Amino acid sequence: MRELPIGTSASIRVPASSANLGPGFDTLGLALGLYDDLTAEVIDSGLELTIEGEGAEVLPRTEKHLVIRAIHLGLAEAGVSAPGLRVHCVNRIPQSRGLGSSASAAVGGVALANALAGRVLSDEQMVHLSATFEGHPDNSSASVLGGVVVSWTESTDGETEFKAVSLAPHPSLRATALVPSVHASTNEVRKLLPASVPHIDARFNVSRAALFTYAVQHDPSLLMEATKDRLHQTYRATALPVTTEWVERMREAGLAAFVSGAGPTALALHTDEFPASLRADAVAAGLRVLDLPIVAGVEYS
Amino acid sequence: MRELPIGTSASIRVPASSANLGPGFDTLGLALGLYDDLTAEVIDSGLELTIEGEGAEVLPRTEKHLVIRAIHLGLAEAGVSAPGLRVHCVNRIPQSRGLGSSASAAVGGVALANALAGRVLSDEQMVHLSATFEGHPDNSSASVLGGVVVSWTESTDGETEFKAVSLAPHPSLRATALVPSVHASTNEVRKLLPASVPHIDARFNVSRAALFTYAVQHDPSLLMEATKDRLHQTYRATALPVTTEWVERMREAGLAAFVSGAGPTALALHTDEFPASLRADAVAAGLRVLDLPIVAGVEYS
Repeated sequence: MRELPIGTSASIRVPASSANLGPGFDTLGLALGLYDDLTAEVIDSGLELTIEGEGAEVLPRTEKHLVIRAIHLGLAEAGVSAPGLRVHCVNRIPQSRGLGSSASAAVGGVALANALAGRVLSDEQMVHLSATFEGHPDNSSASVLGGVVVSWTESTDGETEFKAVSLAPHPSLRATALVPSVHASTNEVRKLLPASVPHIDARFNVSRAALFTYAVQHDPSLLMEATKDRLHQTYRATALPVTTEWVERMREAGLAAFVSGAGPTALALHTDEFPASLRADAVAAGLRVLDLPIVAGVEYS
Repeated sequence: MRELPIGTSASIRVPASSANLGPGFDTLGLALGLYDDLTAEVIDSGLELTIEGEGAEVLPRTEKHLVIRAIHLGLAEAGVSAPGLRVHCVNRIPQSRGLGSSASAAVGGVALANALAGRVLSDEQMVHLSATFEGHPDNSSASVLGGVVVSWTESTDGETEFKAVSLAPHPSLRATALVPSVHASTNEVRKLLPASVPHIDARFNVSRAALFTYAVQHDPSLLMEATKDRLHQTYRATALPVTTEWVERMREAGLAAFVSGAGPTALALHTDEFPASLRADAVAAGLRVLDLPIVAGVEYS
């Protein structure tokens, strides 16, 4: 294992993400133009970690920090080691809100390691590594590859491999996120899913997920239909009352809205301006309203 | 309602189709280069119907014939009528084998009517009309639009609307159909489906159907994974032993194979030559082996 020279440094920016996108439970994701900026430098020993922005008050400044663990994973995969690290995180992605902050941290750490090692990891390796580490391949693949992703898991001979492909979204498409002030626990919300679902609901989502891939690339006018879902949102509606209310209000206004990941953020995809009255109402109700382009994946600088 | 002049005539050719394509139950379809040729002429009264080829021994020569009923539906939708009709059908699509022969008959009839009326029906109308009439929108939309289709059903205020979009398949992609000599009843085979399925299987198919749309257009090497299914094929396997055996044999040979529609045809999508040994074995076992390109939709001439 090659040891990186002291002074080796790298900077990356990693986008937020949304997952599920209505019908594409655990499958569809997209990268959103809201970034964590991470820099790292190889030092002679120990860990110097500084954090500003989202989560700065609560995140650990130790080897336990998600970004640091992901850096070590990435360094090992790249076949290099560092005697010590100085890392600085500028966090802008709201945490535990359904915008993939954990996945972005995982991707960010792996990408920092990759940058320090001289960009030896492929996109495929980054997708697999970050998903293995963080557990939400729809989010992490979006942060790696950018655009709109289809992610899946292949299991062969007991080995699990995470894979994803990226689709280019229609150029007129943008997203608006309504971010409630409450947090959501993905694991808690996940427990609300039933063990089985009607066959007719399964095939409903099959058709909408397939349609989504077409609509998001070629015909955004089909996104209202293509973002319909019967596999998760209704089951979680009572646990996410604010989210559910805003998804419904946006859909009634003709916007292709859905729960972002496991919530509580509600996300809408649209081509026209986001309605001013809805925006004002959301702000008055205490939600943050973020206008976000769909962007490329993690950027090295 | 305008009455068509006596002597008005038209010819169309309508392709066969395959549906489901693995994960896309009731959703995905594709048009196959195997055609029924239909011609019609307006006469002064009655019906003169001649049929050659597949089904010629058993099909009714009356107004009950699927093509004739579809012609009348299409004429009504186009706002025209005919005092009498002479119709000739050259049938090449094997019947009740999972290659969409009924859907092709429906599309063929509607298209003949459309041609007689001067091509006044849009593709959207043809998709809706043929699906309403025949009941398998994944098949009929493929025969209308050609290529690979994503079809879905929208229900608003008690009205059901059938819709579909078409994707261009990767140019290197072709299909091989293994057609057993037995018939299959879609309705009987359909009864084998469970009322509910595990949530994990539903989302498995969601991801594969979404992936299929990408793989079939951009990366056929992903079709092995993208044609995996957990919503119908395993449930029907015992009812379709020959089909199941050949789907498995083709998949073991690295071909992206699946049950075509409700069977009994097994279809494989591939870019290389179909393996000669498999072909010889299938022929020896009494199956017809058809090499079929993926083609455009119904053609007017």
